[in-house]
Amino acid sequence: MANTVYDVTAWPGASVSPYSDIGKVINEIITDIKSKQTTQNTRPGATIYIPPGHYDLLTRVHIDISFLTIKGSGHGFLSEAIRDDASDTSSWIEVQPGSSHVRVKNTDGSNEAFLVQRSGAPGDVGRLNGIVFQDFCIDGVASSKPYTPGNSKIGVSVQSDNDALRFEGMGFVYLEHAMVVRGADACSFTNNFIAECGSCISLTGASQVAKITNNYLISSWGGYSVFAENAEGILVSGNTVLWACNITLINSNRCAISANKLLSNFPSMIALRNGSSGNLISGNHFRRVYGDGTSTRFDDLYGLVHINGDDNAVTGNQFSFSVPAADITPSGADPAIILVAGGARNYLATNNITANVGVKVVLDASSTGTKILYSAQSSQLQAYTDDYALVATP
Amino acid sequence: MANTVYDVTAWPGASVSPYSDIGKVINEIITDIKSKQTTQNTRPGATIYIPPGHYDLLTRVHIDISFLTIKGSGHGFLSEAIRDDASDTSSWIEVQPGSSHVRVKNTDGSNEAFLVQRSGAPGDVGRLNGIVFQDFCIDGVASSKPYTPGNSKIGVSVQSDNDALRFEGMGFVYLEHAMVVRGADACSFTNNFIAECGSCISLTGASQVAKITNNYLISSWGGYSVFAENAEGILVSGNTVLWACNITLINSNRCAISANKLLSNFPSMIALRNGSSGNLISGNHFRRVYGDGTSTRFDDLYGLVHINGDDNAVTGNQFSFSVPAADITPSGADPAIILVAGGARNYLATNNITANVGVKVVLDASSTGTKILYSAQSSQLQAYTDDYALVATP
Amino acid sequence: MANTVYDVTAWPGASVSPYSDIGKVINEIITDIKSKQTTQNTRPGATIYIPPGHYDLLTRVHIDISFLTIKGSGHGFLSEAIRDDASDTSSWIEVQPGSSHVRVKNTDGSNEAFLVQRSGAPGDVGRLNGIVFQDFCIDGVASSKPYTPGNSKIGVSVQSDNDALRFEGMGFVYLEHAMVVRGADACSFTNNFIAECGSCISLTGASQVAKITNNYLISSWGGYSVFAENAEGILVSGNTVLWACNITLINSNRCAISANKLLSNFPSMIALRNGSSGNLISGNHFRRVYGDGTSTRFDDLYGLVHINGDDNAVTGNQFSFSVPAADITPSGADPAIILVAGGARNYLATNNITANVGVKVVLDASSTGTKILYSAQSSQLQAYTDDYALVATP
Repeated sequence: MANTVYDVTAWPGASVSPYSDIGKVINEIITDIKSKQTTQNTRPGATIYIPPGHYDLLTRVHIDISFLTIKGSGHGFLSEAIRDDASDTSSWIEVQPGSSHVRVKNTDGSNEAFLVQRSGAPGDVGRLNGIVFQDFCIDGVASSKPYTPGNSKIGVSVQSDNDALRFEGMGFVYLEHAMVVRGADACSFTNNFIAECGSCISLTGASQVAKITNNYLISSWGGYSVFAENAEGILVSGNTVLWACNITLINSNRCAISANKLLSNFPSMIALRNGSSGNLISGNHFRRVYGDGTSTRFDDLYGLVHINGDDNAVTGNQFSFSVPAADITPSGADPAIILVAGGARNYLATNNITANVGVKVVLDASSTGTKILYSAQSSQLQAYTDDYALVATP
Repeated sequence: MANTVYDVTAWPGASVSPYSDIGKVINEIITDIKSKQTTQNTRPGATIYIPPGHYDLLTRVHIDISFLTIKGSGHGFLSEAIRDDASDTSSWIEVQPGSSHVRVKNTDGSNEAFLVQRSGAPGDVGRLNGIVFQDFCIDGVASSKPYTPGNSKIGVSVQSDNDALRFEGMGFVYLEHAMVVRGADACSFTNNFIAECGSCISLTGASQVAKITNNYLISSWGGYSVFAENAEGILVSGNTVLWACNITLINSNRCAISANKLLSNFPSMIALRNGSSGNLISGNHFRRVYGDGTSTRFDDLYGLVHINGDDNAVTGNQFSFSVPAADITPSGADPAIILVAGGARNYLATNNITANVGVKVVLDASSTGTKILYSAQSSQLQAYTDDYALVATP
Repeated sequence: MANTVYDVTAWPGASVSPYSDIGKVINEIITDIKSKQTTQNTRPGATIYIPPGHYDLLTRVHIDISFLTIKGSGHGFLSEAIRDDASDTSSWIEVQPGSSHVRVKNTDGSNEAFLVQRSGAPGDVGRLNGIVFQDFCIDGVASSKPYTPGNSKIGVSVQSDNDALRFEGMGFVYLEHAMVVRGADACSFTNNFIAECGSCISLTGASQVAKITNNYLISSWGGYSVFAENAEGILVSGNTVLWACNITLINSNRCAISANKLLSNFPSMIALRNGSSGNLISGNHFRRVYGDGTSTRFDDLYGLVHINGDDNAVTGNQFSFSVPAADITPSGADPAIILVAGGARNYLATNNITANVGVKVVLDASSTGTKILYSAQSSQLQAYTDDYALVATP
């Protein structure tokens, strides 16, 4: 076997048991890799395998090399919230998440389980490339809704410019933030299972063409399913986004959110804010229900889709709204399905709305040139401006 | 190596060769896991590897623990139908499926190769979590079209409430049912290759937010590509569904079927039945051809899309119909592209129809308030009710 | 461990180090597999593991058996173009791609790193089935833009009829062609990272129902993101396609291109040529910019979407055009967003256009019966025929 293949349970260089502190063991492996890969042309990285087991992490892992693959044998999700809400679990067969299960219990003062960061300017030392997190579980162990700030734990935080990172098949549970990636270029999030976290995916700084596909994203009303600032060209496709679906784009442009299943107990399922422009929201299913959680962050005038930017297109979506009239805020208001809070030339076409109460597509006074084509009946349009075009749904 | 990693070919505890009865060996491994993981806080499960090889399964595998990953090295599909239809295969290099190839030859009276089931009420003993079937082939060995009832074999049957199960990269061939999952919560089916089966995916009982993405689903006219009853919020996206595409939802609501490639030799490519409501069918390509198989289950009045429920949306799809006039049933009928058999407020917008014969969008008498927007020319609408709105395709 | 599991670094039968010539080692492994699997019913294939490392390939690998899985531990992408354009990389930590990194340096006169081909007619010897390329990097080592003809290197070339092949999680860089597959049936390309290549995926000959999902496809202005001739029913969904997005279909029918993020510095982002008919382009985001590369292959009259065929549907897409007026060719022309160069009954509905200059939807004289529904303002339609129907965007 090549010396680039490590198993945390079988590596003789470990100073502690991986079950006691897998973080320390992985850091020691990284040190070992660096001792063996010593020139810029001989650094292919390595793969570190985490077999099924319960592992405590006391020490934050610090990754500052490219091409490291950390891989387990399953996302190992078990709903800790259901467990913690149950009156009696004494007869349950399992009460912990499992598979390759890393319990985040830092004693080093850090919040992150995994920190990916390299000293030096990216132009000088190069970006971090091709790091892979695959098929293991990062568990915050204990938390309470809405998990943010909760236990303040972060699964993976990437804080240096990076290219072509992959998060695949991972499980995240009971964390404030599952993944935070700063300065992402072509970062792929696929086939992950993220649940009972404050926020799922945060793209901070400025990012390019992140791809978020085929995931379960299940987060609370306190955080975000996907949060991005200053992003260009994110693709969000084929995901199931649940509980408090909230995809928020801040000054982010030309993203595509297509073919997703979205469900929330709260408004603001997709928010295009601070001038986010040229985005596409197409072929998604929006379901709004009520009852699982409480939040005053947004009221029902905010919109399931909230737009404050130019030239966004919303096409071919289904909106299904079902909230008891007594639970709508402000009391007596007509909930907004889509709110165009501002911006020019937004384009809404062939969206179907079904609701248990009267709902509205709303154009605020500062919006201009919005087109509403077969996306609202005449009675469903509430316009605080005359600068729009309506082709009403019959 | 941790004691949670098994290889069916190398485990000393096996009482038989895995090539003779892999089912018995896996059951013995599961017994071994249970003997080592004895408390509810120390059950991370294990991973069982099936290297490439031909394995007979005489004994049904019974999985009653969470977090078990069974993994091979390839779906190993070979078309057994083409092989069995060929006049002479004596010079073929391979005539069997391969990779990690499990031949279902139960001698124990069972139909299932893998049964996932736990005794006790889920509330008492917990649900089954995070079980993974990955990258191996389950082969029914011999069958004949339409494979249902055929050999009555089932690849994987899950019969206890479950959470976050994964079926990934699997191959299924020559089975009546590839996968049957009862009581699924957040069950993920992705990147599988299912072909020459009666039915591909059956979600029985009641299920929540199953995700069916990025698969090949190839089933016969006797069964279903996807069958679901009492389901909430399924996502079906990015799949290629062939031969007799038939996605049937029974009393299932708020599902999203988006961005798929669908082909069938028969009507009923998507059926929303028994009041299935609030679903979205968007951005799919429907191709209907004729000739590969025979069935009288549906005639051409049934619709490629059949709707009997409320508030469903069908947006932005392409329908391409090509059946010789002589082969249409009933003889002389105009085939239905979309049939709204009943229900209120269904919404059809910007669907394009191309056909070699005159075809129709049909509204039955019990349907109300259907909107047909740029989805049929005036001559293509056949309405047995006056309660609809048409904006005809020019 | 079964004798079907190989590690290129640990196999005692190798005549050379895999680091010196991994191609020769893999060929020797294939010879070994064939020596052990000697009848048509006992050929399950094998899996060959490539641990992280830098491997030179001097000898082309020739695969003529089914069910071979070649697998590494990461796509290992590093941008060689950014490296080669940098003024000083002396302090970069890594300057090579990594993970399971195969450097294509053929000394055998071949252009391909991997050739998949079997002697004999497919009907006589059978097709090649279920071969898998997974999670490793194929690197052409040195090249220059636009990489075609460039170094003329090909990552994987499949030249015999094949069924159910899989390309997954692979990295390709600095190749003229990443993957060329002739005669593909149900070939799956998913989760790959292809960048700095001339062309990404070429489906030559005639192909059936290829599935291209969830990839990064990043190619130059000289080649193609996806090229297909005589193809039936390709699905292209959930991909991020960059730099010079160019999906070209030649005489290819009933394909679905849905829910993708597309970006190009050049026209011809999707071209349906030579009578390509019945295709669907739905829910995609098209972004056209200027500046990264030079090409005179197409001018701005060619269309971001170019159609020459019948019955194609373009629904629910977003077009975002931003090219300085001075850089448009021919000088002074209004760029075409969609050009219907010929064909009957093409259907354009609810597409939104935003642009920094005056742009057009163009119908050439030979086109007939095009429908343009809420896809262009009246002033944006340029028709050289009267045979069309326009419902103008207000």
